[in-house]
Amino acid sequence: MPTSPSLSSPGAVRNLLFIMCDQLRADHLSCYGGTGALRTPHLDALAGRGARFERAYVSSAVCGPSRTSFYSGRYPVSHRVTWNRVPLPVDELCLGDYLAPSGREFSLLGKTHFVPHRAGLDEHGYRLDDAARTRFLEGGFTPVERYDGHFEMPQGSAYREHLLARGYQSAQPWTDYVIGSHDAEGCFASGWYLRNAALPARVRDEDAETPYLTSRAIDFIRSKGDSPWALHLSYIKPHWPYKAPAPYHAMFGAADVALPVRTELERSHAHPLHRAYQRHEESESFARDEVWRAVRPVYMGLVRQIDDQIGRLMAFLAEAGRLHDTLIVFTSDHGDLLGDHWLGEKEYFFEPAIRVPLLVVDPAAAPGQVRNDFVECIDVVPTLLEALDLPVPEHRVEGRSLLPLLRGSASSLEREFVVGSLDYAYRQARLHLGRGPHECTGWMLRDARFKLICWEGFAPQLFDLHDDPQELVDRGADPALAPVRRRLTEALLGWMMARRRRSTETAAAVVNRTHAHERMMNILIGRW
Amino acid sequence: MPTSPSLSSPGAVRNLLFIMCDQLRADHLSCYGGTGALRTPHLDALAGRGARFERAYVSSAVCGPSRTSFYSGRYPVSHRVTWNRVPLPVDELCLGDYLAPSGREFSLLGKTHFVPHRAGLDEHGYRLDDAARTRFLEGGFTPVERYDGHFEMPQGSAYREHLLARGYQSAQPWTDYVIGSHDAEGCFASGWYLRNAALPARVRDEDAETPYLTSRAIDFIRSKGDSPWALHLSYIKPHWPYKAPAPYHAMFGAADVALPVRTELERSHAHPLHRAYQRHEESESFARDEVWRAVRPVYMGLVRQIDDQIGRLMAFLAEAGRLHDTLIVFTSDHGDLLGDHWLGEKEYFFEPAIRVPLLVVDPAAAPGQVRNDFVECIDVVPTLLEALDLPVPEHRVEGRSLLPLLRGSASSLEREFVVGSLDYAYRQARLHLGRGPHECTGWMLRDARFKLICWEGFAPQLFDLHDDPQELVDRGADPALAPVRRRLTEALLGWMMARRRRSTETAAAVVNRTHAHERMMNILIGRW
Repeated sequence: MPTSPSLSSPGAVRNLLFIMCDQLRADHLSCYGGTGALRTPHLDALAGRGARFERAYVSSAVCGPSRTSFYSGRYPVSHRVTWNRVPLPVDELCLGDYLAPSGREFSLLGKTHFVPHRAGLDEHGYRLDDAARTRFLEGGFTPVERYDGHFEMPQGSAYREHLLARGYQSAQPWTDYVIGSHDAEGCFASGWYLRNAALPARVRDEDAETPYLTSRAIDFIRSKGDSPWALHLSYIKPHWPYKAPAPYHAMFGAADVALPVRTELERSHAHPLHRAYQRHEESESFARDEVWRAVRPVYMGLVRQIDDQIGRLMAFLAEAGRLHDTLIVFTSDHGDLLGDHWLGEKEYFFEPAIRVPLLVVDPAAAPGQVRNDFVECIDVVPTLLEALDLPVPEHRVEGRSLLPLLRGSASSLEREFVVGSLDYAYRQARLHLGRGPHECTGWMLRDARFKLICWEGFAPQLFDLHDDPQELVDRGADPALAPVRRRLTEALLGWMMARRRRSTETAAAVVNRTHAHERMMNILIGRW
Repeated sequence: MPTSPSLSSPGAVRNLLFIMCDQLRADHLSCYGGTGALRTPHLDALAGRGARFERAYVSSAVCGPSRTSFYSGRYPVSHRVTWNRVPLPVDELCLGDYLAPSGREFSLLGKTHFVPHRAGLDEHGYRLDDAARTRFLEGGFTPVERYDGHFEMPQGSAYREHLLARGYQSAQPWTDYVIGSHDAEGCFASGWYLRNAALPARVRDEDAETPYLTSRAIDFIRSKGDSPWALHLSYIKPHWPYKAPAPYHAMFGAADVALPVRTELERSHAHPLHRAYQRHEESESFARDEVWRAVRPVYMGLVRQIDDQIGRLMAFLAEAGRLHDTLIVFTSDHGDLLGDHWLGEKEYFFEPAIRVPLLVVDPAAAPGQVRNDFVECIDVVPTLLEALDLPVPEHRVEGRSLLPLLRGSASSLEREFVVGSLDYAYRQARLHLGRGPHECTGWMLRDARFKLICWEGFAPQLFDLHDDPQELVDRGADPALAPVRRRLTEALLGWMMARRRRSTETAAAVVNRTHAHERMMNILIGRW
């Protein structure tokens, strides 16, 4: 295959390695400040070789909408996958679709949580040939091995077969070994129950999910030889079920963890939405001290396991001679509240859920950068496309390439705030609050100092991150901050107005029509 | 074909007749108060047989977005056809698509201005069979005869062939006869020039666009016999070119017309957007007295011609015995400013452009109703679907059926405001204002008293329709109305938040998942 000059020049990017973790808090990486005794030397080294973004945010702290934003470069308000397993509308395009016109594919190893809108094909009578069908079914990706995790796998799944071949004999090898333990009495203890978190998984580390996917990534990259590739390596962990194999299950103890950030005031005077989320089962569990004391050490162990596997993967890339021509992105689809603010899981707009780690290693950029710019998950698509010299369809993509910043041709991203959204229609919170399925959205706008959260049908929340960086005092009703609320409300409205909804016509076509429309059509409008 | 009991019961709707005019101001119908000497007795009679909506609004005062809202039941913010000839995203559904699952079609006679997103098919690799292709190409409709008007027709077009057969021999029969005249010296005078508006078209009335389409509608309905049908009869007029055949060209004179509503203050202290629109050629023309004095009488004549044709069509329906089982909607895609506020054309959010006539004759409802409820063009889809006992897909359709109101089972629509939007990226106004093609949206929220207009990058406008029903005093910067601006700004943000963007999953599916999701998937989230 002929190689274009730009691809063979020193420092030019030929390969993309887009690594995502699931539910990984930024503050659990030691390069982000770290938590308790946990150190992440390999991720710190990755940050040192590239750029670490201090203020990186996802567009929704839920897998489905966040990942669709990572893959489409568009906010959930635009791609419309507002929650988990909401099918993607049949007009949307994702990373692999953006690469397809240049004859490239975006390969997938691991999780996407993507659901195609099959009914949408039927409604319109659209039919697909095989290549188009794969992209349709897989959100634009070309699966090497899709593995969404969190469930027992069907017969024939590659990871299941791997487990069976490695001797984990069971009809449910994931349930029985990967998230299964034996308790002190030798009885089976399911990883679904948080009380069993501290018990070691029955799987050996090398066969657990993170090492397994890393091995598959190494196999894939090796198989490509000197051909260019683009790979989305999408880990399942440290997402629940919180279950680690030895030695990670016992690497940290209750004495090593950070205490949950929460106050009694947050319970006694909670905003109705915060209160409704506090009533979810996972929140009520994490409100109990024994729960976060059991879970947080295992979560830390799972992060450490990821760090070790990143070390292994980077050692392979160095050995394979791929560090100089591979752009690497490391991030997460959202964080995990782990009992902060009396909440389990994610979704809510508090920093531990909506802020994520983001490391970008660009061979053409200076190492060791630490950036305070506001960046968003929608910036990944234009960054990856620009790295391959592919056009960024600006009439669709709402993110901005980070390359000018990284390569020193821009000094700032000129973004004054980030925006997140939530659709809690699928959650018990909707029933607690007596809302219908079409009136359950929340919206966050976070600028350099404040975080405004607007809810359909409820008063807004407001946090002053300068005076209250832990977001413990909701000042949504504070009269002294009324001007701030107004300013941010207007900013949110302005943001809503500016969305990329005219997605079927390029900016160039608009400009052309502005100048030539009437002439082209041979019509005269309003001429005397 | 077997007929279901509900279809054969007295008063039940079997047929739909959805009549749309193009650029027809509500105030030119005498049942809406009327203008000067113009009377519209047949439309008044239609209103008398059904309901007349006093406060009906389109979602954008431009053909493309307004029609797509009429056809999809969704606001432009949702269907994303923000201006003329912007292709419809390939995931959207329109009237004919909503009827298709029940085996029915929505026939089309006349204009839709619809443009399919052919490139969208290619981007995804979607292929179509013939039936699906027609709906894709025609915005869901099944054309009896599509005729978008305003341009010379290609060879073989039915109306062109009709004109040729009727003796209008020319390579350009529309240009030469339908909008062509002879001046006092016998020289050809093109209808494209407003100065020629008062000259009679060379076409005979019976062969002009409005009578021609009416004849085709009568043919179509007659051809259906006793089979049920749904027809969109979509007139081209009174849209420019302002050109009427005898006798309509001379039915009204300068003494008969209403004076343009405008003040010097509107020019000397115009909002930047208003000023930019005043600089358009059609606005500068209509700023001159000789222009509106020449055009307004012809516009009135074209409305009178429509009224006469409605009389003819209704006489036919009565004779054919179809009045008792046909639901009739009469409306327009927007109005025409005709020099009001120093503007020509439409687009801007003033009442003569954004407010439209809406008459609904439902055989099952009481006659002679006059309603003050706020209704919107998006209400037509659910009204028509409910009239045929078809389900309204509420996860997509944002309008509300008017039938409960009309049939007395609801006393109010409980809508506190209407919303309109504009994308002026395609207009000279963008260049005057130095804006990029993705930063040109405007948004109108009109409640019982006020009209707020928000623009990207500019201060808002505000009109008090109680004290200033003609919208002559922009109070956007009036400190006394700051609380009103804030209240309406928050209402607009709330409206934005509530859009139907989760369009790939029904409300019932959401409710089901709220209750059963975790159990269905055999997972436990956050259980101790």
